Amino acid sequence: MSDNNTPLNMQGPVCPLPHQHTDTVIISHGSGGQMTQDLIRNIFQTRIGNPILTEGNDAARLSFDGKSGQLAVSTDSHVVSPLFYPGGDIGRLAVCGTVNDVAMLGAKPAFLTAGFILEEGFPMEDLHHIVDSMADACQEADVQIVAGDTKVVEKGKADGVFINTAGFGLIPEGRQIGGQFAKPGDTVLVSGSLGDHGIAILQARGDLGFESQIQSDVAPLNHMIEALLNEVPEVHVLRDPTRGGLATSMKEIACQSQVSIHLDEESIPIKEDVRVACEMLGFDPLYLANEGKAILILPDQYAKKALNILKSSPFGTLATRIGAVSSSDPGMVLLKTAFGTTRILDLLAGEILPRIC
Amino acid sequence: MSDNNTPLNMQGPVCPLPHQHTDTVIISHGSGGQMTQDLIRNIFQTRIGNPILTEGNDAARLSFDGKSGQLAVSTDSHVVSPLFYPGGDIGRLAVCGTVNDVAMLGAKPAFLTAGFILEEGFPMEDLHHIVDSMADACQEADVQIVAGDTKVVEKGKADGVFINTAGFGLIPEGRQIGGQFAKPGDTVLVSGSLGDHGIAILQARGDLGFESQIQSDVAPLNHMIEALLNEVPEVHVLRDPTRGGLATSMKEIACQSQVSIHLDEESIPIKEDVRVACEMLGFDPLYLANEGKAILILPDQYAKKALNILKSSPFGTLATRIGAVSSSDPGMVLLKTAFGTTRILDLLAGEILPRIC
Repeated sequence: MSDNNTPLNMQGPVCPLPHQHTDTVIISHGSGGQMTQDLIRNIFQTRIGNPILTEGNDAARLSFDGKSGQLAVSTDSHVVSPLFYPGGDIGRLAVCGTVNDVAMLGAKPAFLTAGFILEEGFPMEDLHHIVDSMADACQEADVQIVAGDTKVVEKGKADGVFINTAGFGLIPEGRQIGGQFAKPGDTVLVSGSLGDHGIAILQARGDLGFESQIQSDVAPLNHMIEALLNEVPEVHVLRDPTRGGLATSMKEIACQSQVSIHLDEESIPIKEDVRVACEMLGFDPLYLANEGKAILILPDQYAKKALNILKSSPFGTLATRIGAVSSSDPGMVLLKTAFGTTRILDLLAGEILPRIC
Repeated sequence: MSDNNTPLNMQGPVCPLPHQHTDTVIISHGSGGQMTQDLIRNIFQTRIGNPILTEGNDAARLSFDGKSGQLAVSTDSHVVSPLFYPGGDIGRLAVCGTVNDVAMLGAKPAFLTAGFILEEGFPMEDLHHIVDSMADACQEADVQIVAGDTKVVEKGKADGVFINTAGFGLIPEGRQIGGQFAKPGDTVLVSGSLGDHGIAILQARGDLGFESQIQSDVAPLNHMIEALLNEVPEVHVLRDPTRGGLATSMKEIACQSQVSIHLDEESIPIKEDVRVACEMLGFDPLYLANEGKAILILPDQYAKKALNILKSSPFGTLATRIGAVSSSDPGMVLLKTAFGTTRILDLLAGEILPRIC
């Protein structure tokens, strides 16, 4: 999720963004949640804001030459720690993260740029592995890296390797997909189980305290999304719930579209290992990062067809319906819990797990 | 200069790239010179190479939808130290560096993405200043930042702030500009004095040992280049001699075009302060980084007209003719020194000044 999916244009009392003043950058500014939005609004938006940047989706939509189709553009810097973890590494993440952001605007990702910041002393063998992963992910996603850059900083001035990718693709004519297009009556789908990436990173850090089989879900979703949109062009919203997790993405969309979203906790797919890890460690899986999942919002009559298409993809086998969109309480996300109570979901406040992507 | 301006496709005995094996990344891998090319060829090129990436210019040229014009795309990560220096800062550099790379393909830069990696504890006031500089530079260059991303890493895991920018613009139909198009008989121009940026950085680090008035030349060159190309569409090559300086850029172009380039040392504009600093510190100004200069190669009959247009820009007042292109000794760059001798210029080997951009 790039920052430009933060709903900078949201207004009204249900989407408050009280400014939390700090004199320095703190870790929570990178959470993807409320502090990140705060930073963007107060530093970036006021200075370099423009109507494209503030549309508030995973990627920017551009009418480049006013003629044929539209460009979707996105960027993401990857600082994940550790660099290698069960199910992936920073190389695969750097390709998939940006491919997915572009795909979530209904575009076909075509080209990436890649900027490497390397720390002096970084093992060449690790760099080999990372670039191999990028190559494999590019092939899987059918995208090309067309421009690159490499910088080296002294030992102690970075953390091994950081990778920025920018990506772009064409939006076929007529496609209007974005967080601002959710409509009352729409159904909310998710393409699979939540929290796998977050727990896999924790495990790789040795912070889990027990053995688990959880692997990161990091994957390029563009082929699955394209197959879906070819058959179900009526999709209103696509979003990959990365930093900040499902809850933060839902809150953003509710604010962008000025609707409420009602989720059913029991229907949200979470693997048993993830659930156990969350319970032991006090994490809420709805706020954990995912790197190979999509949220889809579309008119209810197309939900069944969409689910069938998603399930036929290796990345969508656990796709399911998790909620619905309503016109009441615009900007609110309400979770019906397993106990029958209702819980209000808000943006991630603070930071539950830094350096996750 | 992004890495993709390294002539990865160069062949033959005059452009050797002997592999210098190292087990880890060393500072010279970020020099923009021979070690950078080595890294690219051995790690990146073999794994993620493709015909677009290997064309070897400042930006990649893409036929995006096969119809109207072509896209130029480039990326650069900025790790300059210190962040603020006479004449500029990392914010202005991050915008201008990428704007210039796109402009050097004859494209009109239109949109940028910006990815920030912030170190925990970075002063918010400094971030304000940096983003202000970016906003000013965007206005000056008439480009928009359309997508952004912010990551935060723990204190000690970065160096204040790193900024990646990717940029793109449309190449008007019919324009064919690139390092591979230099022709025997062409004239070589430079838009102004060399080495200012490198010495300004050194001064800001307190390494100069004496007071100087040198300011970085960091500037967006796209308007000057566009004015030139409107009047002189016959330009063959444009390049901004950043990391590795004039000499490295010349060597790259000589290899890409399989021509020799003959430079006249006495005609190369170098400010007196820069010359003195270089003599005292043992630097060669031809290898120092520039961030607001262009090399231009074009048929001799258009040189005078081109110089007049360049001189009418605030960034081209010292524009001058510095050399010529020949068919003999392809891949060689020969400098006629002030003493009448001839010196062979090669790629920058090693690193004269790290963290320059």
